[in-house]
Amino acid sequence: MLAFACDYMEGAHEKILKRLEETNYEKEPGYGNDSYCESAKEKIRRACKCPEADIYFLTGGTQTNAVVIDTMLQKYEGVVAACTGHVNVHEAGAIEYTGHKVLTVSSCEGKMEAGRLREFLQSFWQDGSHEHMVFPGMVYLSHPTEYGTLYGKEELLKIRKVCREFKIPLYLDGARLGYGLMSRHTDVTLADIAEICDVFYIGGTKVGALCGEAVVFTKNNTPGHFLTMVKQHGAMLAKGRLLGIQFDTLFTDGLYCELGAHAIGMAERLKAGLAEKGYSFYLDSPTNQQFVILPNAQIRKLREEVYLDLWDKVDEDHTVVRFATSWATRAEDVDALLALL
Amino acid sequence: MLAFACDYMEGAHEKILKRLEETNYEKEPGYGNDSYCESAKEKIRRACKCPEADIYFLTGGTQTNAVVIDTMLQKYEGVVAACTGHVNVHEAGAIEYTGHKVLTVSSCEGKMEAGRLREFLQSFWQDGSHEHMVFPGMVYLSHPTEYGTLYGKEELLKIRKVCREFKIPLYLDGARLGYGLMSRHTDVTLADIAEICDVFYIGGTKVGALCGEAVVFTKNNTPGHFLTMVKQHGAMLAKGRLLGIQFDTLFTDGLYCELGAHAIGMAERLKAGLAEKGYSFYLDSPTNQQFVILPNAQIRKLREEVYLDLWDKVDEDHTVVRFATSWATRAEDVDALLALL
Amino acid sequence: MLAFACDYMEGAHEKILKRLEETNYEKEPGYGNDSYCESAKEKIRRACKCPEADIYFLTGGTQTNAVVIDTMLQKYEGVVAACTGHVNVHEAGAIEYTGHKVLTVSSCEGKMEAGRLREFLQSFWQDGSHEHMVFPGMVYLSHPTEYGTLYGKEELLKIRKVCREFKIPLYLDGARLGYGLMSRHTDVTLADIAEICDVFYIGGTKVGALCGEAVVFTKNNTPGHFLTMVKQHGAMLAKGRLLGIQFDTLFTDGLYCELGAHAIGMAERLKAGLAEKGYSFYLDSPTNQQFVILPNAQIRKLREEVYLDLWDKVDEDHTVVRFATSWATRAEDVDALLALL
Amino acid sequence: MLAFACDYMEGAHEKILKRLEETNYEKEPGYGNDSYCESAKEKIRRACKCPEADIYFLTGGTQTNAVVIDTMLQKYEGVVAACTGHVNVHEAGAIEYTGHKVLTVSSCEGKMEAGRLREFLQSFWQDGSHEHMVFPGMVYLSHPTEYGTLYGKEELLKIRKVCREFKIPLYLDGARLGYGLMSRHTDVTLADIAEICDVFYIGGTKVGALCGEAVVFTKNNTPGHFLTMVKQHGAMLAKGRLLGIQFDTLFTDGLYCELGAHAIGMAERLKAGLAEKGYSFYLDSPTNQQFVILPNAQIRKLREEVYLDLWDKVDEDHTVVRFATSWATRAEDVDALLALL
Repeated sequence: MLAFACDYMEGAHEKILKRLEETNYEKEPGYGNDSYCESAKEKIRRACKCPEADIYFLTGGTQTNAVVIDTMLQKYEGVVAACTGHVNVHEAGAIEYTGHKVLTVSSCEGKMEAGRLREFLQSFWQDGSHEHMVFPGMVYLSHPTEYGTLYGKEELLKIRKVCREFKIPLYLDGARLGYGLMSRHTDVTLADIAEICDVFYIGGTKVGALCGEAVVFTKNNTPGHFLTMVKQHGAMLAKGRLLGIQFDTLFTDGLYCELGAHAIGMAERLKAGLAEKGYSFYLDSPTNQQFVILPNAQIRKLREEVYLDLWDKVDEDHTVVRFATSWATRAEDVDALLALL
Repeated sequence: MLAFACDYMEGAHEKILKRLEETNYEKEPGYGNDSYCESAKEKIRRACKCPEADIYFLTGGTQTNAVVIDTMLQKYEGVVAACTGHVNVHEAGAIEYTGHKVLTVSSCEGKMEAGRLREFLQSFWQDGSHEHMVFPGMVYLSHPTEYGTLYGKEELLKIRKVCREFKIPLYLDGARLGYGLMSRHTDVTLADIAEICDVFYIGGTKVGALCGEAVVFTKNNTPGHFLTMVKQHGAMLAKGRLLGIQFDTLFTDGLYCELGAHAIGMAERLKAGLAEKGYSFYLDSPTNQQFVILPNAQIRKLREEVYLDLWDKVDEDHTVVRFATSWATRAEDVDALLALL
Repeated sequence: MLAFACDYMEGAHEKILKRLEETNYEKEPGYGNDSYCESAKEKIRRACKCPEADIYFLTGGTQTNAVVIDTMLQKYEGVVAACTGHVNVHEAGAIEYTGHKVLTVSSCEGKMEAGRLREFLQSFWQDGSHEHMVFPGMVYLSHPTEYGTLYGKEELLKIRKVCREFKIPLYLDGARLGYGLMSRHTDVTLADIAEICDVFYIGGTKVGALCGEAVVFTKNNTPGHFLTMVKQHGAMLAKGRLLGIQFDTLFTDGLYCELGAHAIGMAERLKAGLAEKGYSFYLDSPTNQQFVILPNAQIRKLREEVYLDLWDKVDEDHTVVRFATSWATRAEDVDALLALL
Repeated sequence: MLAFACDYMEGAHEKILKRLEETNYEKEPGYGNDSYCESAKEKIRRACKCPEADIYFLTGGTQTNAVVIDTMLQKYEGVVAACTGHVNVHEAGAIEYTGHKVLTVSSCEGKMEAGRLREFLQSFWQDGSHEHMVFPGMVYLSHPTEYGTLYGKEELLKIRKVCREFKIPLYLDGARLGYGLMSRHTDVTLADIAEICDVFYIGGTKVGALCGEAVVFTKNNTPGHFLTMVKQHGAMLAKGRLLGIQFDTLFTDGLYCELGAHAIGMAERLKAGLAEKGYSFYLDSPTNQQFVILPNAQIRKLREEVYLDLWDKVDEDHTVVRFATSWATRAEDVDALLALL
């Protein structure tokens, strides 16, 4: 079977496995106090050009979103997200489970627009009865978005400006950040993100790690007793080294970017092939997820040989299919997929 | 440095690392739907002699306790634990964070006594105003306990009897289950636990895995839509294979028991050496954690060469020290520790 | 000052005060176990033509919504509401505070349409990844809605049909139910509501009581240990008689309907007067809230003599104003208001 | 029937009912913004000799405890209470429902001792692993306690000293404060409490009101956006005037103290009569609740003519009975009760 259903169908990059093996019998303290977490943090700080960044490793994306959002918000606050945002749709209510509302603004190809955000915040503060409403306490973006799209640097700066105006932090979910940073159509760097956002996370799970996300607080703004709250959320790993070693490896010799670039290369190859064959795209994605409109009959046949992801119904006879490449996708598999189409 | 501070200072058993490597490029669906999870579940069912067991893999102990307790309880219920129980003391309020109270009964060397439990439950139900109280909805034990002690089979059966009487499920936290099962002083088998408990978990993190705990529902009693609630708790791993492969390996050719037995052997060696040298034990632990009373001055010196865990103050001049052996402890390290004492 | 800002600016109907006085020194058990609660329940059962109804009295609307929704939902479920629904907008996140998401469907003049609801539920169940989403576990309507509009009996039956299809209960928030039932443009009776809904509440606070809402479970479907959960929510009144006496009075000799009818009469008088003067309505409300578009300059002047509620901005120069009548509004005050317009 | 089961079996003091009637048709804004709330706050500030006190009115005791504790605590903190404290035993888990643990210290006749509190707090901070534990974030007392006992001023000052040492606020639950202040055996005044505590509440429900508790923040320490969180807890009353008018009346011409003194007089009369007849007391209560040990046979007989409260089992044949007097107890009823004993 060819596998394009998502970007987490394989294990980890082999350098990570090798490093786990090499360090296996070293004795390290638990709960993230090991030397590998320390080293990884230092490398991430450098990669972010943010020497004062405060970094924590968590296990997965939903967990990270819930922990960051819950600990950054006051009890009377909610998080503002695009209505298509991952936290609003596909996290089984993990944010609401922490007691906080996801406040939504309309989205455009998965993205939030600064203008819409400002309108939303303005109308909240103008509303005389806002004491009876959930206070917007943070803005949540993902980059890439659920639809694989990316914010331009200007767009991020505009959103940041609105956040500053209303004095609320900007949080960026980077579950697929490596694929965003290595897109051929982006002007946003890791350092830009560290500079623009108050907190963000660098996704490991989808970019070559077995598991793990690195939360980066960039403005000396880590919530007090953050680790106790991580534990309270059931999100603290006893063998924190598992996360430290992985991120230390990903941020050694540019591996994280290399993996991102590989997936982007494969996605571009696929995209070009699809375009050549005349397929329609649901939208123009500059990252590792490609959304293509296919006839249902063709999909049925294709699924006999390819793992793929059904995204959305277009009409009775057509469906949007998501093909995701990853750090592990091989060129020959892309070609094999194209041959089937 | 010698390392006896806890049982999670090394990585994973090498067979696990090898298996991760061998399977690394196989394409598997996410979220625990992979073939390794399936295989591991089947092996655990056999090891438990419980063919109908329903099994889920989670990442860590606190997370597992929070998810199991929250999903098994009704909203008006709390969990009954020994006052020294891990969920009551060392989980940063992770249970209360889910909205449920930990109801406590007194403990004896870390264990709950069936008699005390019955008294507690009886007095709850006799109390006319119990509608204004938290209903006891589940009993929580750990085996081994926080103090390394073990329940005998008779003791477990008595506790089970009380649970049945009051129609509440019995949950056993097996974070260190491997070390309990392989103790030379136990008559309790894995099959006994599966038979006696309504739900329990088999600890991986402390018994040779990088991470992972296997939750076993033994009575066709998995809460409906359990996986959605796992996700809601931020506890679902995208690459579930990481957990599946580890447990599949641990339950192949008796590795889990082998690792448990090794740690027990090392603990017995240490215990015998300590006794020979005339040290006093805080209590008689039949498992991998040994609690020894040492003069503070000696502890200060020892810590220059040994990672150890301070447990409790005895008096101004003495402290209880915990020495933990593990699947990775070497006989020569035990001997080196003894030589220092 | 004339007062049309809302329907809770006065105390209680004088029969209620009189009854509180008459019964003041009778000794009654607490927590809703008094004879007045019993009598009120019996009268409400009769008014609902639902002899098996199970009835509880709570203090206010937000509290009632939070308690009913939280106790009826499973932990993995959310409540489906119109995006303009009170629980989604004006309750400070009280529903999310209980851990449950408010799932929204678009609304039309404050109302949910059966067709939209069906689409939403269908798309949830069709979505392959719905295990990662919040399950729709209940439908929330309010009648009258936030905009004073009413469901017709046919509309309610259609919504009920969708709920049955998807096996989820239908909950109706009747904070202003008395004004809905007594509208001159409704074909929905209290018995209809009891028959159609699985649970609803009859608002007292806004219809002549000092405080209090009567929750009616109509299908032998009260959640187990409901009172304990009421207490857990901090929603149990020690002197439950305060609520019992008020509802007993409201449901004696048709007082509840009488109060509703009075407010409707006043609203119709106001509406006719406004129409005559050529004012534009934001929408056509058949109940006690009238939404009128006024120039901002006129509003500023009017507010010197009238308490009113600013509802929504229309354009730079116009605003929607809400005038609410109530059980306590006097005809002369309506006329005085009209004279000012 | 004679009624001594609790102190909330009657309605409200007649001055309150009269005032509700007199003000009934005045038009007042909702949600506590009315002139009566304002006036009541001013009177309470004077009574507390605390001109800067910030005051809010809530409906009942459990609600007040949940709201105050939840809003004052950080997310990683719990509240320290005597193990017999109301919040630990008789509130259906309302505190844990907010996500916070109740941390317990042993109690003596319902009271917390400063020494025990200090030991508890010291041992928490000394424990190296306290990052994995719930941080003690507030101390909860009740005055009178569950057992009717009272703190002396010295005792309160000692507890306050410990709180200051560990930098955590002191909260006093005054559900029955009026009866504590008017005890003949107290040296603690309302002004003392305002001076010593960081926040406390003055109980209305049990001291002559229909409902209502007045929360007093004494140190300019009201949590930000407190009212929004009150709403989020479902604890905001639309007709806040109901609470304002009651407290305004209770704090006019010393009515609150008068009611307290009356109940104390009745309790002393009962206590003297019981002592004279040779009955044993469970403990020496200086307030309106008297705990007497009675043979079960006598209790059965007594219950035919008296509402009373069974408190605790002494042995097979004896039970502790609680007799509560209140603002509404008549001397002739005390005498009638004594005649039956």
